Amino acid sequence: MVEQNALPFRFSIYESKNYLETCEAITTMIVRGAGAIGSAGAFAMAQAFMENSTNDSAFIEQAKKTIANTRPTAQNLFYAINRVYKVGVAEGVESAIAEAQAIAEENMEEGRQIGLFGRELIHDGTHVMTHCNAGWLGFVDYGTAVSVIHLAHEQGKKFFVWADETRPRSQGARLTAWELVNAGIDHAIVPDNAGAWLMSQGKVDLMIVGADRIAANGDTANKIGTFEKAIIAKTFGVPFYIAAPLSTFDMQCPDGKNIPIEQRSEDEVHYQTGPDKAGTMHTIRVTAPGSSAINPAFDVTPASYITGIITEKGIIEPTCENIKALFTEK
Amino acid sequence: MVEQNALPFRFSIYESKNYLETCEAITTMIVRGAGAIGSAGAFAMAQAFMENSTNDSAFIEQAKKTIANTRPTAQNLFYAINRVYKVGVAEGVESAIAEAQAIAEENMEEGRQIGLFGRELIHDGTHVMTHCNAGWLGFVDYGTAVSVIHLAHEQGKKFFVWADETRPRSQGARLTAWELVNAGIDHAIVPDNAGAWLMSQGKVDLMIVGADRIAANGDTANKIGTFEKAIIAKTFGVPFYIAAPLSTFDMQCPDGKNIPIEQRSEDEVHYQTGPDKAGTMHTIRVTAPGSSAINPAFDVTPASYITGIITEKGIIEPTCENIKALFTEK
Repeated sequence: MVEQNALPFRFSIYESKNYLETCEAITTMIVRGAGAIGSAGAFAMAQAFMENSTNDSAFIEQAKKTIANTRPTAQNLFYAINRVYKVGVAEGVESAIAEAQAIAEENMEEGRQIGLFGRELIHDGTHVMTHCNAGWLGFVDYGTAVSVIHLAHEQGKKFFVWADETRPRSQGARLTAWELVNAGIDHAIVPDNAGAWLMSQGKVDLMIVGADRIAANGDTANKIGTFEKAIIAKTFGVPFYIAAPLSTFDMQCPDGKNIPIEQRSEDEVHYQTGPDKAGTMHTIRVTAPGSSAINPAFDVTPASYITGIITEKGIIEPTCENIKALFTEK
Repeated sequence: MVEQNALPFRFSIYESKNYLETCEAITTMIVRGAGAIGSAGAFAMAQAFMENSTNDSAFIEQAKKTIANTRPTAQNLFYAINRVYKVGVAEGVESAIAEAQAIAEENMEEGRQIGLFGRELIHDGTHVMTHCNAGWLGFVDYGTAVSVIHLAHEQGKKFFVWADETRPRSQGARLTAWELVNAGIDHAIVPDNAGAWLMSQGKVDLMIVGADRIAANGDTANKIGTFEKAIIAKTFGVPFYIAAPLSTFDMQCPDGKNIPIEQRSEDEVHYQTGPDKAGTMHTIRVTAPGSSAINPAFDVTPASYITGIITEKGIIEPTCENIKALFTEK
């Protein structure tokens, strides 16, 4: 997998030798983004079956728990683990590997379909804002929110992207911006504080973000700051879209109150890593010594703030009925 | 003056030898914060009179323009320059120096009065959020928003402060947090993205921020992100207060649309400076190479989002009538 902590300054591939190393990669965010976490979790589960030469069911149960405990919020993780687990138990290691590969391929195709539906929202001259990174880095390929942007760009549309910096880990400034530079898409990084100012100037036409978990009523957990942007988007009448595959929906979860929010180390707020002018990497303190910080990784945007959810089956308004229909209609 | 760019990692005093050096200190934000900018502008104007040994009125006019052009948004700057200019022209250099000193002393006393009125809003158990730094660093002493906090702490009240990080220059994480550490006041740094999450959890009782310019109708320019916080505060019913002296009001400015917003260098978004673990300072890139960024320094919060303005004459609701009365009543 791509070593996402090294981006945008170095592109390197991280190879995991066993399921515990894959877990470590998820926890430390070498791999991040809902779809990529899901696929990594699927392969971790397949690795556990490969490592279980004595066919010890306790080993598999423990591995399943360990993988599930790497990150608490992204629904794709649990979805993927469960699929590989069931197939592995029923049919053995080869089928578990095939199931993990199938999940990764589905994730890629879902991202492409989301991009195809979503890009109809983007026109020549549109200013689209996104938060965090829901691009191909966060998925197996394409991504969700940024898939929409990539596929609109492929059509030759001339539009502009506002990439929210997305402190504290700055996935917007480091990953989305890196994807957009590489794709040659016009964009600028926006300090998270400048969203309301931009919208008040009429400079944002559309907002599209990804999701880590969507409850059965449409309440959506995504990167911290998403809820804040949704509130200001509503204030200024800016359409606010979530882009996510069906595997991000948690139909067992009735509403956002039931989605656990991961609290990460405060050191992610206090320290930043990057190169000096000579290219030497440093980790520096950017806050007052002696201060503490909070670091919730996600927040929950109520469905009432969401204009629509872009899925691989089309764009829906986030009502309980519409969401239920996604899983029952053919 | 305190070298604010070196904080929180080094405390040093910057001495300016002439008015142009003082202008440079304002532009580069060695001195920052509405009140401190005002006092620095006052002393720069007094320095210009001191440097004008040939009594050349063209020199004074040019100096006045140069000082006024250092920063466009903070009203205290123009207020202070005009006072010292008028006195200097009418009564000469000694009176100009005395006027600058008077402005600095008034600024200190106004901050103390603001703190005394404002601290009645803080009680045992209050969770108060602030944005940027409107503390003693940003003024001659006391400050405005943080003066309220300091003086409530002096009363022995037990409360908690949420200090917004305030990217891109991180005055909350670097300056307000540093003031709070030194004062022994319980606090935590909040990534700017986490405001809506904190408020949705009921963890913010009150928000108090400073101001750079207040129009005659109460619309208030302050550090970028203030408007965003005011919108979410209104959404969650959190009282939102501005703390500012009368010298921050611009009665010639009918509303917020007429307040110029400073656009600063995008490098403030791309680069961060701080010490590594060994204490060596580095400036590192924190965004994707090749990306551009926007960097508006302020935004304007409409009066309708403001619960009250804490002035040295008391707390008022931000209506045209109440504001006018501040300047007409004794």
